[in-house]
Amino acid sequence: MKPTLPKGMRDFGPRQMMRRQYIFDTIKKVFVKFGFQPIETPAMENLSTLLGKYGEEGDKLLFKVLNSGDFLKDTDPAAWTEASKVAPLLCEKGLRYDLTVPFARYVVMNKNELTFPFKRYQIQPVWRADRPQRGRYREFYQCDADVVGTKSLLCEAEVVLMINEVFDALKISDFTIKINHRDILAGIARQINTDNHAALFAAIDKLEKIGHEKVASELAEAGFTPQQSTALFHLLSEKGNIETLAERFIDVGKHGVNELKEVFKLLETFQAGNSHVELDIALARGLSYYTGCIFEVKIGGVSIGSVCGGGRYDNLTGVFDPSDPKSGVGISFGVDRIYDALEELRLFPEEVAGVAKIMVAHFTDEGFLYGLKTASRLRAEGIAAEIYPDRVKIQKQLEYANKKMIPFTAIIGEDELKTGQLSVKNMKEGSQEIMSLENLIRQLK
Amino acid sequence: MKPTLPKGMRDFGPRQMMRRQYIFDTIKKVFVKFGFQPIETPAMENLSTLLGKYGEEGDKLLFKVLNSGDFLKDTDPAAWTEASKVAPLLCEKGLRYDLTVPFARYVVMNKNELTFPFKRYQIQPVWRADRPQRGRYREFYQCDADVVGTKSLLCEAEVVLMINEVFDALKISDFTIKINHRDILAGIARQINTDNHAALFAAIDKLEKIGHEKVASELAEAGFTPQQSTALFHLLSEKGNIETLAERFIDVGKHGVNELKEVFKLLETFQAGNSHVELDIALARGLSYYTGCIFEVKIGGVSIGSVCGGGRYDNLTGVFDPSDPKSGVGISFGVDRIYDALEELRLFPEEVAGVAKIMVAHFTDEGFLYGLKTASRLRAEGIAAEIYPDRVKIQKQLEYANKKMIPFTAIIGEDELKTGQLSVKNMKEGSQEIMSLENLIRQLK
Repeated sequence: MKPTLPKGMRDFGPRQMMRRQYIFDTIKKVFVKFGFQPIETPAMENLSTLLGKYGEEGDKLLFKVLNSGDFLKDTDPAAWTEASKVAPLLCEKGLRYDLTVPFARYVVMNKNELTFPFKRYQIQPVWRADRPQRGRYREFYQCDADVVGTKSLLCEAEVVLMINEVFDALKISDFTIKINHRDILAGIARQINTDNHAALFAAIDKLEKIGHEKVASELAEAGFTPQQSTALFHLLSEKGNIETLAERFIDVGKHGVNELKEVFKLLETFQAGNSHVELDIALARGLSYYTGCIFEVKIGGVSIGSVCGGGRYDNLTGVFDPSDPKSGVGISFGVDRIYDALEELRLFPEEVAGVAKIMVAHFTDEGFLYGLKTASRLRAEGIAAEIYPDRVKIQKQLEYANKKMIPFTAIIGEDELKTGQLSVKNMKEGSQEIMSLENLIRQLK
Repeated sequence: MKPTLPKGMRDFGPRQMMRRQYIFDTIKKVFVKFGFQPIETPAMENLSTLLGKYGEEGDKLLFKVLNSGDFLKDTDPAAWTEASKVAPLLCEKGLRYDLTVPFARYVVMNKNELTFPFKRYQIQPVWRADRPQRGRYREFYQCDADVVGTKSLLCEAEVVLMINEVFDALKISDFTIKINHRDILAGIARQINTDNHAALFAAIDKLEKIGHEKVASELAEAGFTPQQSTALFHLLSEKGNIETLAERFIDVGKHGVNELKEVFKLLETFQAGNSHVELDIALARGLSYYTGCIFEVKIGGVSIGSVCGGGRYDNLTGVFDPSDPKSGVGISFGVDRIYDALEELRLFPEEVAGVAKIMVAHFTDEGFLYGLKTASRLRAEGIAAEIYPDRVKIQKQLEYANKKMIPFTAIIGEDELKTGQLSVKNMKEGSQEIMSLENLIRQLK
């Protein structure tokens, strides 16, 4: 029976892995440059930690782990009819659904040992029992950075700086960091006279994707009047800058505008340039826990959704520790989408780290043994080197190097054994040159 | 309700993570130097892929994932009595138990695209529903390298070289690479006249741990005579070198000896020195799939079991693809144990990568804004720098830097604002020095 993969699951081969590592390493380097430190949490959490944190839909999408041992003990299967009621009897644990809830749990469990403001990054897979489709998988990596325990708007400004650095380092020049503030959205809600923030924000969030007409009908279903919808679309269409926006709002909306102004001022002081930053009052972001600035990043020239998002939350840990709410700012990079964008834009570096620099090929038994010394010497100089393990035709050895994208081969034939020189082939250009091992080492270094 | 972790599960905080990354990075670098390339496989596999691959005990230790959706559909819970028979009705998927079986599955599924000999490394967590105890967890990382598709003994020799390089790079000087051959064990079995290899090898494997007496009684239970046990212990006690060993064996045992001799010869040709290698004919290793050379590494001066093990298998992929068996050699580093050893031997480098080099502290609002420029400049020079986000007492800012083990702080007070010079504090030595930003950059680089 031919083995298969469960649906929505993926293997990553060497080429994909090296490209993914390039993305992870780039993001990690920026996180570290800004003082973020890594943590990891386990794949399995108690279901009590996960349930109720992602809405009703999220609860359904949690992967649950069957209790080990005799999981039927003290149960009455005969009475079982409804799966959703039976699951909690069979399963105590579930798989991580995101990195935010485990992070909040970690902070609460370790708050006496941690140094606040606590800046952590976390790069791990998460699992969701979503219906698999193009670009949506049941296992995917999240790549998050959060600072928790401070209300300083510096955090927002530094998030913008980090985003800038990441996309610069990835050589993506055309990207936009959209920024908004939940209080501006609350100001809009007030202006169109509604308290139903959840429905309003969800509708705004979909505007770009499904258009005015469909959003209007969704709003109508949620009890909004046609006048309210019209007023909303009018407000959102006046895109203006932060100054004109300031005149439009009072109270809560004003507060949001002022915070954004402060973030822009900090960015200016950083002398970092905010040419990629764009105020977008139609940016809403679905997640309910955001309370302040929100961000989203889009890459130009590709039809790929948002590749990065985040925002300020005032009470990340409250669900586990209501007496001690902690404010913070978080950001998450979507590695799968960034991968697709880099591929589409042909921006992956041709030579990614992780491939041997040279392979030693050999014609004879004697050449093989001589090759061992050659490989040994190259490695001692810190050069990644392979020697083909079997005594096969030279053509097959070169094919191997080619397929693995090893840039050079050192061929050891009878002449080379006599002279002690190596015949070095540039696999890309096809050119061949005779040189000493010392010379080769100098060139490869 | 205070949140908890499921038993056997761990969080890794920043300090642990940075030390773990140091170990992973060291091993990864060596793998790459020898031409191994990374792959990753998903956390969940079909249970049909996993079941029956780890023995009866292993099947019980697999974590099973509850089917999503209506998992009771088309089932008859009233008839359910035995957990082990019900599990397959509720669960199609299980969590990865090791990296070897998923690797074999990967090779079989991708054999037409892969370049053989295929050299891959893989560093991912695995999950086992073992009873948790000191040093044994339900989630832990494995760190494997395998080359598959060649019978060349070069692979065995290179495994020894890689082990040497890893422990050298970790600054562990006292370690032993024990090496043996399954055919030598088969030779021993022949000499004491038994075909029951499984029981014999399992008993030999335990000798060091539980001693002669207990092993003898286990052998008796398995049907061995006292004479056989005595003969076995006698054979194992003659530790001699490979030359004296060669005289003792015929047939299969001889074949094992000859292969080991060839490996030693290759190591000599590599001029790599095999001072850490020790032939140990009492080394058996539990796993049934090994067929040739086997390895195990112990660190001296600590009472920690084997930290690395591996060997040659002749038919890794056969269970998924009987018509096309592929031989290979694999090795696995035990990162948790290596971590404990490095800690016990105080061998972790004091300064591990991943901590900011400097934190900017500030007395006033003006100093804060000035600090942004300072941090910005440092980062532009590639120096990891933090600025304390809140306007709090300088003492609290320095405490933060201290706890995060940031080696330097640049303090911006009124004098610094006037002169444009920085007051730089060495957090470890407590000394303080006035210098220009340019000078600071030079010193930190």
